[in-house]
Amino acid sequence: MRISNRAKRLQWSPIRKLIPYADKAKSEGVRVYHLNIGQPDIKTPPEVLLALKEFKTNVISYGPSQGIPELREAISNYLGKYGLDVEPDEVVITNGGSEALLFTFSIVADDEDEIIVPEPFYTNYNGIAQILGVNLVPITTKAEEGFHLPPIEEFERAFSKKTRAVLLCSPNNPTGTILSEEEMKKVIDFIVKKGIFLITDEVYREFTFDGRKHVSALKFKEALDQIIVVDSVSKRFSMCGARIGSIYAKNREIITEGIKFAQARLCPPTVEQHLAIAAYGLPMEYFDGVKREYQRRRDVVWNALKGKEGIVLQKPEGAFYTVVKLPVNDSEEFSKWLLTDYRSKGETVMVAPAGGFYATPGRGKNEVRIAYVLEAEKLKRAMNMLLEALEIYPGRTS
Amino acid sequence: MRISNRAKRLQWSPIRKLIPYADKAKSEGVRVYHLNIGQPDIKTPPEVLLALKEFKTNVISYGPSQGIPELREAISNYLGKYGLDVEPDEVVITNGGSEALLFTFSIVADDEDEIIVPEPFYTNYNGIAQILGVNLVPITTKAEEGFHLPPIEEFERAFSKKTRAVLLCSPNNPTGTILSEEEMKKVIDFIVKKGIFLITDEVYREFTFDGRKHVSALKFKEALDQIIVVDSVSKRFSMCGARIGSIYAKNREIITEGIKFAQARLCPPTVEQHLAIAAYGLPMEYFDGVKREYQRRRDVVWNALKGKEGIVLQKPEGAFYTVVKLPVNDSEEFSKWLLTDYRSKGETVMVAPAGGFYATPGRGKNEVRIAYVLEAEKLKRAMNMLLEALEIYPGRTS
Repeated sequence: MRISNRAKRLQWSPIRKLIPYADKAKSEGVRVYHLNIGQPDIKTPPEVLLALKEFKTNVISYGPSQGIPELREAISNYLGKYGLDVEPDEVVITNGGSEALLFTFSIVADDEDEIIVPEPFYTNYNGIAQILGVNLVPITTKAEEGFHLPPIEEFERAFSKKTRAVLLCSPNNPTGTILSEEEMKKVIDFIVKKGIFLITDEVYREFTFDGRKHVSALKFKEALDQIIVVDSVSKRFSMCGARIGSIYAKNREIITEGIKFAQARLCPPTVEQHLAIAAYGLPMEYFDGVKREYQRRRDVVWNALKGKEGIVLQKPEGAFYTVVKLPVNDSEEFSKWLLTDYRSKGETVMVAPAGGFYATPGRGKNEVRIAYVLEAEKLKRAMNMLLEALEIYPGRTS
Repeated sequence: MRISNRAKRLQWSPIRKLIPYADKAKSEGVRVYHLNIGQPDIKTPPEVLLALKEFKTNVISYGPSQGIPELREAISNYLGKYGLDVEPDEVVITNGGSEALLFTFSIVADDEDEIIVPEPFYTNYNGIAQILGVNLVPITTKAEEGFHLPPIEEFERAFSKKTRAVLLCSPNNPTGTILSEEEMKKVIDFIVKKGIFLITDEVYREFTFDGRKHVSALKFKEALDQIIVVDSVSKRFSMCGARIGSIYAKNREIITEGIKFAQARLCPPTVEQHLAIAAYGLPMEYFDGVKREYQRRRDVVWNALKGKEGIVLQKPEGAFYTVVKLPVNDSEEFSKWLLTDYRSKGETVMVAPAGGFYATPGRGKNEVRIAYVLEAEKLKRAMNMLLEALEIYPGRTS
């Protein structure tokens, strides 16, 4: 018997692949500051935890494949507060944003079809595309340019007769970049001209700094039929483990197909959908405190790393990540070394090598993604360790 | 833009596709007895609901991709009680049995590869295969033979150089058939000879009637490297909405690949994994009462339908389903008619047309699946309605 090529081509998560080294360090009593994974330490809202305690049922039964109507209603209401008109019937609830991506890629692309995506990008786009045999065609964005989009000609160059969609994520994981209305408009014009879909990953919608605003793809009325939004409660309400995501689209055919995929796996988790209902019922003021907290952390990272010799980063605009160019040849080796060799008073720091966030081979080899998911004091300590580690790293290049 | 062929080829769930007709009947005040879906009315064990109430956390955070260690440990212990040796490291927790199937098919089969499966089979095998472009090659089993396996020559005939696995489900959904040790052994010899995988869906392990015993594929030491078991808490503990399934295998390569797929979607739901830990901690006596209850219901169905003119069924041996041949030409039309036209004192009954449980086109056109998931009194009423409806159905053929 043999393992499929599908399995063989599937990458290990660059966010999780170094975990065995972290586990080993911990087993030796070393404290590891985790900046490798987007697991915030922000508390899940008490209203959500209360909903858990108060959830009453005799039978934890299947729900509708499309998701519990009250949850779809709650999402519709929440989007309405941003001026976005999405009916409950235009929402499909999924097992996290991950399944929202799996369904969306499945609906728009066949084996060997292509989706254009600016790189670096959320690494699991790769994983999901690899499972389905879909090819991600990258457009490279650069640390020096704050990871903003290159001219639209780059999209033209990447386009082929196999192109089925463009995929954007803003505020961006892993770069922290927010696409401006102007940038969005250029892509909208492109997908309209080409007659392809635009998939937007808007899971970090609320986390925008320095007064910036997120621009949803759904603001562009001229392209409504071509837009599919992928979303999730994970980061928004600091409930990553709940695995409740969603797809929404104004194009009814997309939703109909989405429900078909949803039926093939019966339903999303029932208990956690009820928690999500409580989360989406929170007043919008909830986000003010969270946003302030992330901006404070962003400042810690920015102030620690800006202007440091050999380090390239632009001030992150949103989400809670940044991709930083380091004076090393192989950031995976460096990240591993942090876990195996570097120690500061019995502590070390873990980051994610950025190579796996690119589709172009060799790209990101001297970059890491930092998730600023720890409170300011811990984050300062982690930044100091990172800088000290770079000073003494045997593989430092400049 | 265009919808993918992947989406177009994906079938609607035959279990769920008639739901709009049921909803319409209900909106007119009609009471519908649901025998179409495997949603038991058996209460979720109080220990599980207590675990829900007592679940304490500040942050509902990501868990390990492979699943929470305590849950894998609990599954290992549970399997040990059946004399099955599965280490916690040999288990991958999934989003329900559905994702367990998705991962397993993905690991063993590429686009256009084949998996041999006796039909009728659990309809979502079709859905998941269609998503991945994997072909299910059916071996037909027959109502007249109690849906037991045909001679192994049928498997030989179905085998091609694209065959990657055989897939068995016992106790079977939708037929209620339990494969004997002898039947299992023949398939084991076949997969050993051919050097392919055997995937076994053992989610109904406990539901065996008249003193029968379930025979796990893992009992066959000569094939341990070739066996992948798909499992779920859904029916076992009457917690279908929890979406906690698992894969286990003694072949470490399978588990390693499984973890890679698991990483691509981060983790299974955290809260519900904790509920599953409580469930797997139940004493084995828990199943005695549940099994008795299902056997009582099986008897209701059997006594109501056996020997009735034009109806073919064998006494179901396990699970809580049976596939029944009816004197109709098109069971989908009949099932729809039950919802749109048939009324008995303001009530009707819903069954699942069996066509979608077959891969061979046209098969099962005069069969329905009955899930006996209602308590005995309601089930008697439902059987009476089904028989009465057959009497007056305009499309009756004999």
